[in-house]
Amino acid sequence: MKAGILIMAALAAASLGAADTIKLPEPTADSGVTVTQALKARHSERAFSEKEVPLATLSGLLWAANGFNRPGMRTNATGLNKQEIRIYAVMKSGAYLYDAKENTLVKVCGEDLRSSIAAQQPYAAKAPVSLLIAADMSDPVFKGKGNTLSCYDAGIVSANIYLYCAANGLVTVCRGSMDRAALKKALNLGDNITLHLNHPIGYSAK
Amino acid sequence: MKAGILIMAALAAASLGAADTIKLPEPTADSGVTVTQALKARHSERAFSEKEVPLATLSGLLWAANGFNRPGMRTNATGLNKQEIRIYAVMKSGAYLYDAKENTLVKVCGEDLRSSIAAQQPYAAKAPVSLLIAADMSDPVFKGKGNTLSCYDAGIVSANIYLYCAANGLVTVCRGSMDRAALKKALNLGDNITLHLNHPIGYSAK
Repeated sequence: MKAGILIMAALAAASLGAADTIKLPEPTADSGVTVTQALKARHSERAFSEKEVPLATLSGLLWAANGFNRPGMRTNATGLNKQEIRIYAVMKSGAYLYDAKENTLVKVCGEDLRSSIAAQQPYAAKAPVSLLIAADMSDPVFKGKGNTLSCYDAGIVSANIYLYCAANGLVTVCRGSMDRAALKKALNLGDNITLHLNHPIGYSAK
Repeated sequence: MKAGILIMAALAAASLGAADTIKLPEPTADSGVTVTQALKARHSERAFSEKEVPLATLSGLLWAANGFNRPGMRTNATGLNKQEIRIYAVMKSGAYLYDAKENTLVKVCGEDLRSSIAAQQPYAAKAPVSLLIAADMSDPVFKGKGNTLSCYDAGIVSANIYLYCAANGLVTVCRGSMDRAALKKALNLGDNITLHLNHPIGYSAK
């Protein structure tokens, strides 16, 4: 039985392949832009160029969104410190779950899901990467009215993303629209996961 | 009739007094702390000293939370650009509504409502100022399930407050608890106003 599990695990690892986990560069490179400058520059933008976001910048973005800034604690506040937020990076090469502890992106789907992120708004599919702000709502505190708790937490992540973008020459927009059914199927997510918001991110096409 | 209205307006102005509208200093003084440094430092803290927050710093805080950073547009994103967020500064001298256009604080209550903000958690009443994140939910988009839209918006404001505090030597914590009934009565707020979150803010007592 144990051997069977080991073989299955080995097969799973082989089918994913080592390249399916992306080791991220250290996330705390500093652009030198101040909080006040970033607040002055913050805006929503929907015109994305095709220019890719460098991996080091993506690493910083993910850390700003939901990274660890001290042992066990995050850059983003969460209600009752539940840390229920999960970030997916949705790119041409596939969709990846951010593992903040390991500082990696773990591929969970090999398809380009950016059109499911965009839904009826094609501009959003042009961004090289979208961050999908999801939440694991398994904790009983999130049931019923408690759902709003996690909405506050998702908003906090959104603001961190906005300010990191403003400080690093990137543009973004916070969106509630997406094809949630298609995304949940492709990412193999259960009823305990809520897809809150998404942020297409890239360089301005203006 | 017209004269009567004018007299009533004059009496109302007299009873409030000129000192009841506080003109705020320009809000964009820059502490020089970068976005990355602020993200590294961001945390929740509940031990507040009695030291007052200078008016210039409070002005920056309010602007970070819900100010204008360009004509008609805000430092904080809101869903569908509804700009439904209202910020109250709750201090010993009273409670004030932030008027971002005029860059003023308009007194709406002469009582110290910090204990109503604190509710069952007395530490929160020790902060010299609490920012109360409210929302005018009059727009039909916020009815029913749309209520979550404004929760995202409130979370965005919370993150801006956290990062501004981290960049300016202040400590804060985002709270959902408060005596909403007492606050709504004292602030004379109708059913269209939702009290989302509050942020006691001050200098660390540690």
